[in-house]
Amino acid sequence: MTTGAEETVTGSMTNPPMTPVEFTDEVSGGRMVRRQGVTAPLGFRAAGIKAGIKVNGNADLALVFNEGPEYDAAGVFTANQVKAAPVRWSQQVLKAQRLRAVILNSGGANACTGPGGFQDTHATAEALAAALSNWGTETGAGEIAVCSTGLIGDRLPMDKVLAGVTEIVHEMGGGIEGGTDAAYAIMTTDTIPKQVALHHPGGWNVGGMAKGAGMLAPSLATMLIVLTTDAKVTPEQLDVALRHATERTFDRLDIDGAMSTNDTVLLLSSGASAIEVSQDELDAAVFAVCDDLAAQLQNDAEGVTKRVEITVTGAKTDADALVVARSVARDSLVKTALFGSDPNWGRVLAAIGVTPVIIDPDAIAVSFNGSMVCENGTGVPGARDVDLSGDRIHVVADLKLGDGAATIRTTDLSHAYVEENSAYSS
Amino acid sequence: MTTGAEETVTGSMTNPPMTPVEFTDEVSGGRMVRRQGVTAPLGFRAAGIKAGIKVNGNADLALVFNEGPEYDAAGVFTANQVKAAPVRWSQQVLKAQRLRAVILNSGGANACTGPGGFQDTHATAEALAAALSNWGTETGAGEIAVCSTGLIGDRLPMDKVLAGVTEIVHEMGGGIEGGTDAAYAIMTTDTIPKQVALHHPGGWNVGGMAKGAGMLAPSLATMLIVLTTDAKVTPEQLDVALRHATERTFDRLDIDGAMSTNDTVLLLSSGASAIEVSQDELDAAVFAVCDDLAAQLQNDAEGVTKRVEITVTGAKTDADALVVARSVARDSLVKTALFGSDPNWGRVLAAIGVTPVIIDPDAIAVSFNGSMVCENGTGVPGARDVDLSGDRIHVVADLKLGDGAATIRTTDLSHAYVEENSAYSS
Repeated sequence: MTTGAEETVTGSMTNPPMTPVEFTDEVSGGRMVRRQGVTAPLGFRAAGIKAGIKVNGNADLALVFNEGPEYDAAGVFTANQVKAAPVRWSQQVLKAQRLRAVILNSGGANACTGPGGFQDTHATAEALAAALSNWGTETGAGEIAVCSTGLIGDRLPMDKVLAGVTEIVHEMGGGIEGGTDAAYAIMTTDTIPKQVALHHPGGWNVGGMAKGAGMLAPSLATMLIVLTTDAKVTPEQLDVALRHATERTFDRLDIDGAMSTNDTVLLLSSGASAIEVSQDELDAAVFAVCDDLAAQLQNDAEGVTKRVEITVTGAKTDADALVVARSVARDSLVKTALFGSDPNWGRVLAAIGVTPVIIDPDAIAVSFNGSMVCENGTGVPGARDVDLSGDRIHVVADLKLGDGAATIRTTDLSHAYVEENSAYSS
Repeated sequence: MTTGAEETVTGSMTNPPMTPVEFTDEVSGGRMVRRQGVTAPLGFRAAGIKAGIKVNGNADLALVFNEGPEYDAAGVFTANQVKAAPVRWSQQVLKAQRLRAVILNSGGANACTGPGGFQDTHATAEALAAALSNWGTETGAGEIAVCSTGLIGDRLPMDKVLAGVTEIVHEMGGGIEGGTDAAYAIMTTDTIPKQVALHHPGGWNVGGMAKGAGMLAPSLATMLIVLTTDAKVTPEQLDVALRHATERTFDRLDIDGAMSTNDTVLLLSSGASAIEVSQDELDAAVFAVCDDLAAQLQNDAEGVTKRVEITVTGAKTDADALVVARSVARDSLVKTALFGSDPNWGRVLAAIGVTPVIIDPDAIAVSFNGSMVCENGTGVPGARDVDLSGDRIHVVADLKLGDGAATIRTTDLSHAYVEENSAYSS
C-alpha cells in the first residue's frame, strides 16, 4: 500500500500555507518529504496489516521496529487521569529510556477496560517480543511500547491481535512502503494518512507518522505519533527535543477541547547514521517534523470546513497569550460564526474576557485575515464586511500589554463535526 | 400582548420533570404561576413596547418600575472582563442598593462600543428619569438600572431608544399584561417568554422574568433577569438571597461554555406587602423562582433537542463535584453523542479525567437515565444498548470518594445549534 501524490519540499514548506513552516539552513536545514515517514531514517523497519481488529476490514495493526545499533527513546503521554491500558504500559516501559519496537492498533482504544485490559496490553507486548526473538532479534516485552486507538470501553479481540502480532513481524520492510503501510494502519476517522520526513544536509534524518482527527486538545489528543531518527544522540537529548517540540505543536492544536485517554507521542533513535548532532540541531529538526504533522492533523480534523489559527499578541507573557488564544479557539460561538463566514469579532472579545488573564478591554485590537475589525475594544468601519468565505481564517488579537504571543491551530464548528461525532461511536 | 397557555402549579412542579422542583410549606410554600412575572408582587408596574430598535419590528423595550414604598435592590453581573456599557452603569448604580426602575432593550447589546456606548446608557437612564419625573414620580438617573441584549459591537439607535423611553412610561400597567409584555420585549433568539411568580401563603410574593438562549455559561449568561418581591426586607437580605439562588441555579446552567458581556440579574423589593420575612423564607422563595426560570432557559436553549442534566456524586466536596460536572457538561464529544442518542459512557469518563480534581479512574460508576453503564471504571453488560432516544437525559457519575455532589443543566450539541449560531450574527 502506498500513498498517491508525492510531495517534496525543499527550503520552505508551502502547504499548509496559513503558517508557512520555514526550513532554512540556519534553523534546521534539510529537505521535507511527505511520502516518507518513520522508515526514512536509517535503522528502522515498519509494517501495517489487516489483522481483523476493525470490523470494516481495513488495516488496523502497525509496527515500528528499531534495528539499532542504539535504542534510545522518549515519550509524552496524555495528561488525562483516565489513561488507557497501553498508555500506562508504555509509560512504565519508557522509564528505561529504551525501545526496540512500537506496536499500534486501531479498532479499539483499550481504555476503561479494567485489569483485563491491562493484561491484554501486556500479552501483546509479550507476543511481539517472542515473535521478534524467533525472527532473530532477542527482545523483551519491556522494550516494547503499545499504542491503541478507537472506541473507549471495549476489550480488544485478542485472538486477532495476537495472531496479527506474529504475522506483522514477517511483513516488516525498511523502505517507504513499510512506513506508509504503518501510517495507514493507525487511521480511525482520519481520511488520509499523515507522515513526513526531514533529510538533514548533515547526513541524518527524522521521520514521523501521526493519526488523529477528533479529540484533539490541550495535552495532545487521540493522537498517536511515532517519530524516528538515525542521529546519534542521548536519551536526554531525545527527551528535551520531544518536549520542546510537542509543547509548541501538538499541544497547540485544539480542535474541540476534548482530551483523549490514549494520546501518545514517541521518539526513537537508532543512531544508525553514526552522526552526533547538537541539541539545537535536534530540537529544530524534531520541531519541524512535529509542526508539519500538526498541520496535517488540523487539515484532516473531524468536520473541518475552515482551518483556523488564533494568534494572540501583546500579552504580558507567552503563557498568558496561550491561555487567551486557547479560550478563543475553544469558544463554540466563535467557531460556529467562523463556520458561517461571519466576522463576528464581538464573540472573540467575549471569549478573551473570560480567562483569568487580566486584560484591558478598551485596548484590544482584532484582525481577521489581515483586515482590522476592532481597535481600542470597539468595532471599526467595515468590520462586518470582511470576507471570510475562504477555507483558511487567521484571527489575530493584540492585547497591547506586552510582548507575549502564542498561536493555537483549530477549526470551525460545523454540521459535519456534529454529524461525525453523533453518528460514530468513538 | 399576553401569553398563550396558562400554567398554575400548586405544591410541586411537574414541568420540567427532570428536576422536579418541590415546593413544600416547609421550604418556601406557595403557589407557582407561570403566566405571571415581575408584576405579581404588589408595588410593581411593567411594560413592553416596540420602539423600533429591532429591525424585524418586534417588541424591544421593557420597563420594570418599583412604586415603593421601599426601593431596595441587589444585583449580580457577568464575570467577563469585557463588560457591556449597561453592565458597568448598573454596577455603579447598585452600589447604593436602591433602584426605582429597570429599563431593558433587546436588539443591541451596547457592548464593545467605547465611551460613546457608555454615554448612550447614561443618556437612556437620564431620559427615563426625566420621563418618570414628568409622570409624577421624582426619580434620578442614579436610581435606574439599564440592561441591553443583542449583537455585540454596534451602537444603539439612540433616537429610537430615547423616544421609546418616553413612550414606555405611559404604557406601564400593574396587571399581568404589563409583566408579560416586558417578558416579550427582552427576547432575542428565545422562542417563548419566560416568567414565573410565587405567591407565598404568608401573603407576600416573588416574581421574575428572564431572557437567554445562547451564551449560557458559568457565571450567568446573556441572561437578563429581573426579580421582584413585595416582602419587607433589607438590601442585605436581598443580596444574600440573590447570591444564594444564582449560585445554585443560573450559575449551574451551562449550554455552551460561553460567557456573555451583558449578564445581569436584578432583585428589587417594594416592601408593598408590609410583611417582614426571614432570611430563610426569602432565600427559599427567591431560589424557587430562579430555579424555575433556569429550567425555562434550559428548555428554550439554542438548538436544543435534548435537555441534559449532569450530576456528579461521591466527590470529596461539592465544589469538586461542580468542577467535574461542568467539564462533562461542556464536552463537545459528550454533547454530540447525546444528540445522537448514543450512550457513549467512555466520553463521559474522558471528560471526568481532564479536570484538576484528583479522581480514582478505577472507582467511577456512571448511569444514563438510571441504567448503570459503567462500574469500577469499566463498562457493564448492555451498556451500549441503553435507550436515550427521549428528549431528556440524566447522566449520573459517582466518583466514590466522598459525599460531595452537584448538578449542571445543559443540552446536547445539535445541528440546530450550529445552524443558529453560524447564521445569526448575535
